[in-house]
Amino acid sequence: MTHTGRKPDEGERYRAILETAARLICERGYEGTSMQEIAAACRMTKAGLYHHIQNKEQLLFAIMNYGMDLFEEQVLSKVQDIADPVERLRACMRHNILLVTRGWSKEVIIILHEHATLTGEARAFIDARKKKYVDFLQEAFAQAAAQGRIRPVDPTIGAFSFLGMVLWIYKWFKPDGRLTDEQIADGMVDLLFPQVAAAGAEGQPGTSPLRVVRPTGTTGPDSSGTGTETP
Amino acid sequence: MTHTGRKPDEGERYRAILETAARLICERGYEGTSMQEIAAACRMTKAGLYHHIQNKEQLLFAIMNYGMDLFEEQVLSKVQDIADPVERLRACMRHNILLVTRGWSKEVIIILHEHATLTGEARAFIDARKKKYVDFLQEAFAQAAAQGRIRPVDPTIGAFSFLGMVLWIYKWFKPDGRLTDEQIADGMVDLLFPQVAAAGAEGQPGTSPLRVVRPTGTTGPDSSGTGTETP
Repeated sequence: MTHTGRKPDEGERYRAILETAARLICERGYEGTSMQEIAAACRMTKAGLYHHIQNKEQLLFAIMNYGMDLFEEQVLSKVQDIADPVERLRACMRHNILLVTRGWSKEVIIILHEHATLTGEARAFIDARKKKYVDFLQEAFAQAAAQGRIRPVDPTIGAFSFLGMVLWIYKWFKPDGRLTDEQIADGMVDLLFPQVAAAGAEGQPGTSPLRVVRPTGTTGPDSSGTGTETP
Repeated sequence: MTHTGRKPDEGERYRAILETAARLICERGYEGTSMQEIAAACRMTKAGLYHHIQNKEQLLFAIMNYGMDLFEEQVLSKVQDIADPVERLRACMRHNILLVTRGWSKEVIIILHEHATLTGEARAFIDARKKKYVDFLQEAFAQAAAQGRIRPVDPTIGAFSFLGMVLWIYKWFKPDGRLTDEQIADGMVDLLFPQVAAAGAEGQPGTSPLRVVRPTGTTGPDSSGTGTETP
């Protein structure tokens, strides 16, 4: 806007504050983190911080909305138009797992799911945004089950099983551990949504699902799943 | 021990303190709860509380150990001797879900899984107790997969998928909601461990698993699972 040099982008600055605050809150707890400490970590004065953020509850609300923005941009928008419900669920789980494991804003996402400190309208607003995702998952589970593509399961149980598997990864995943995040994504996707023969799956030949057909009466599932799905 | 009337059981008293403290910490956060408030909620003086508990970190450690005791008593001890790995996993998931949904010490279990505030030896001790459960699950997954009874899955991914599904239930289960905890248990158990035909499953006729055989080349899983497993 000005010609006096590159002005720091206001949005960038604001996101940096939210991410720094999220890291602090994850480390010390919401109650255990003061606005003074957040300002110091952002290399700002407390007054400077209050220029961007009204108060601590509003900060938490902003972090959660930012987390939902990230999620919608990096997961939902990438999969919501996939017509086939099982492929939609597989791609969605994969993107969500990678958001959890490699997102550079990991703490933002943790706060989104861990902290129930918001109250009143702010709480209701975030809950409504979360519910949209649950509804999306439930609809996909219901469609997949109606088409006989997955085991019959109550869509709510399906949706929250999906979310539990994905979001629990925060608790145990280590970037330098034995399993890569790709392996975890492949393993969980194949565990919950096995690639069975699909009747009339759409898509170009190159993107159609593997057609794994179970032989009658054998004791177990296929062992050919190599986990190479790349949505 | 004495004949002067029923003396309140020391163990009972101690457990009541842990449960009251757990409820407060769940409501207000660990940092946001003072020993003074915990004493008041227990109808004790602060000095009285310190008679039982050295300090706040020791209190958190005691709550977590108590949570592990409850878990081992109400879940692990009931299932660890089931020879069949799939039946062991099914029964284990069911008991663990019911511990989560109907345990009268729900907050103790939440703290066990949510709070990473412990440090040093206390942290290592609790982590080792938790790891025993993960190892138990991994071993059962590995056995079940080796027998071709479940889809081939890395045992670690299997174990943490199981834990995520079960422990995420805290976040969404409502005792007065549409789904009962029994329905959730049945649904999740059948979703992760479908009752497929088992080669040489042991057990009396009455307790053997349903033999559901998939027809070749159909598009989907069985639709006969009514979720009536009662371990």
